[in-house]
Amino acid sequence: MTHTQTQIKSRFLRAVNRLPVDTTPIWLMRQAGRYMAEYRALREKYTILEMIKSPELACEVTLQPIKAFDLDAAIIFADILPPLEGMGLSLEFVKGEGPVLHNPLRTAEDVERLRVLPPEETLHFTLDAIRLARTELDMRGIPLIGFSGAPYTLASYAIEGGGSRNHARVKALMMNEPQIWQRLMNKLSTVVGQYLKTQAAAGAQVLQLFDSWVGQLSPYDYQQYVLPYTQKAIAIAKQADVPIIHFGTGTAGMLELIKEAGGEVIGLDWRIPLGEAWRRLGDDVAIQGNLDPITLLADWDALRQRAQYVLDEAAGKVGHIFNLGHGILPQTPVDNVRRLVDFVHEYQATK
Amino acid sequence: MTHTQTQIKSRFLRAVNRLPVDTTPIWLMRQAGRYMAEYRALREKYTILEMIKSPELACEVTLQPIKAFDLDAAIIFADILPPLEGMGLSLEFVKGEGPVLHNPLRTAEDVERLRVLPPEETLHFTLDAIRLARTELDMRGIPLIGFSGAPYTLASYAIEGGGSRNHARVKALMMNEPQIWQRLMNKLSTVVGQYLKTQAAAGAQVLQLFDSWVGQLSPYDYQQYVLPYTQKAIAIAKQADVPIIHFGTGTAGMLELIKEAGGEVIGLDWRIPLGEAWRRLGDDVAIQGNLDPITLLADWDALRQRAQYVLDEAAGKVGHIFNLGHGILPQTPVDNVRRLVDFVHEYQATK
Repeated sequence: MTHTQTQIKSRFLRAVNRLPVDTTPIWLMRQAGRYMAEYRALREKYTILEMIKSPELACEVTLQPIKAFDLDAAIIFADILPPLEGMGLSLEFVKGEGPVLHNPLRTAEDVERLRVLPPEETLHFTLDAIRLARTELDMRGIPLIGFSGAPYTLASYAIEGGGSRNHARVKALMMNEPQIWQRLMNKLSTVVGQYLKTQAAAGAQVLQLFDSWVGQLSPYDYQQYVLPYTQKAIAIAKQADVPIIHFGTGTAGMLELIKEAGGEVIGLDWRIPLGEAWRRLGDDVAIQGNLDPITLLADWDALRQRAQYVLDEAAGKVGHIFNLGHGILPQTPVDNVRRLVDFVHEYQATK
Repeated sequence: MTHTQTQIKSRFLRAVNRLPVDTTPIWLMRQAGRYMAEYRALREKYTILEMIKSPELACEVTLQPIKAFDLDAAIIFADILPPLEGMGLSLEFVKGEGPVLHNPLRTAEDVERLRVLPPEETLHFTLDAIRLARTELDMRGIPLIGFSGAPYTLASYAIEGGGSRNHARVKALMMNEPQIWQRLMNKLSTVVGQYLKTQAAAGAQVLQLFDSWVGQLSPYDYQQYVLPYTQKAIAIAKQADVPIIHFGTGTAGMLELIKEAGGEVIGLDWRIPLGEAWRRLGDDVAIQGNLDPITLLADWDALRQRAQYVLDEAAGKVGHIFNLGHGILPQTPVDNVRRLVDFVHEYQATK
């Protein structure tokens, strides 16, 4: 244990570094979101991209859940897709439909045209938001997480042109055009890695890589066509010397490969018991997760019982960060969020 | 090994019973479907429900892929949802949208109203189609699979009113209303079990339970709120003394619980290496799977390489049935299906 590590006070940063904590830290993916009235009030005035691109608004939204709940970490308000905009794709959030890329990648020429520019040039708004938010958060003793979409998830959006049920286009390109794929993934992993590294330089104390769609792949395809690029992105980000949380959904069949990508913390969805995942991954990683987000729509008794199960699965382990297995849903009652956060802190403290 | 077992000639039935085979048997989920011109020609004249409810048409469609390819098993042309229609829900297949239940379950009274009637009364068309198809298939030496949706998958459609992205309604009812849930699942498991058993009596030689959405659940919720009812459905079906294939997607985090449901064959999706799944499940089950259906959209080299990987993962094992990890996609080229079927037979034979 280094001198620096013993001085870490934040229980979130302690857990990330696998140091003992007074009680389990908790934050929630998409904790700044539509379930909060404060957020909806701002969204009436601004589009999502306007909020992301205004450092002041992004900072304000980042702080909303921190002010409302006893959360142990903030995550910068941004989205996984703006890096694609910086590369030359035309991004829009369409009401009721989600993100749309108006000029999706289809040919080798499309991939050639993609720009790899410094994040300071294309994503300066999020870097500025991080600087602003750090000042506010330091006063509260709350650390800030930066993040990016992972190369496969970005490739999927860029090729499909938006969300996709079965990822047919992205997989077909990956399987049939290995050279175009390699060129694309090299560009994406450079952009993602540099973006993460620059976020750390701007003040993010932990970085999360959202490999949201990677569970759509067979482990065979993940290992051959994706893992090398996730490794590359993480290796670049690590030049900043801050820990990486590597989150994916549907990864229960390939956790060992996810670990090979190099994250210090593995983020789980709810489809595997946390204890079993940790046994497979080993004690040299921290674990983040893994309550089904739907549980927050349930009555308190049902919610408490399942939160307790997650905590019991992590009993005796060092390095557990409580979270949902995916983003919080818009229809989530605020009161359930408050009770969950407090329960996680109190339950562990009484043991 | 019983006297009966040594007399089994079909390599599909031999693999299901974990007997040695000359080469790996193969069939494909949704093998009778829109990717075939013969199927599309019929669909121009009839709706899906008209085709399912006409034993002659259902028999004809069942045989289409058997005539076109060297497949080792037929599956009766039907759908997982007609059992819900028999219980009193109003089912329609809406173009571009998929199945819709016009009167979804929302209250205790809705669940009370659900009828549990003999399959001979509500699903006689599929039983008749099975009788017709058996006659045709026996001449070709090809066995016939009957099937049903599993209780959770049916509950999900019945409560959500159709397909669902996050299963919020069905899970909220499950978590908040355990008594209504129990009543519903008891009815569904009775209907599913009896339907499967009656299909076997009509001539189906193997039964597949489609637990298609069960991977949306945490293992905790599956074990407490679903597994007992899947066990009940399978126990009723087993009174017919034919083997059960239990198929689910997204189950890599809870294969051991899936095994507890009682199927002789476990059907895998593509999200876990087949060999690793089999190690976890043990040699007392047969395994069906597990090629990503998207692979059939790829060039032959990419397809062959991944099919070979699946076969190599099963090398030396007794009881492998080659299949996709989910249903075949409508845009699949027919020629890829033909080449895959022949490759699976030839690859094993040369080893």
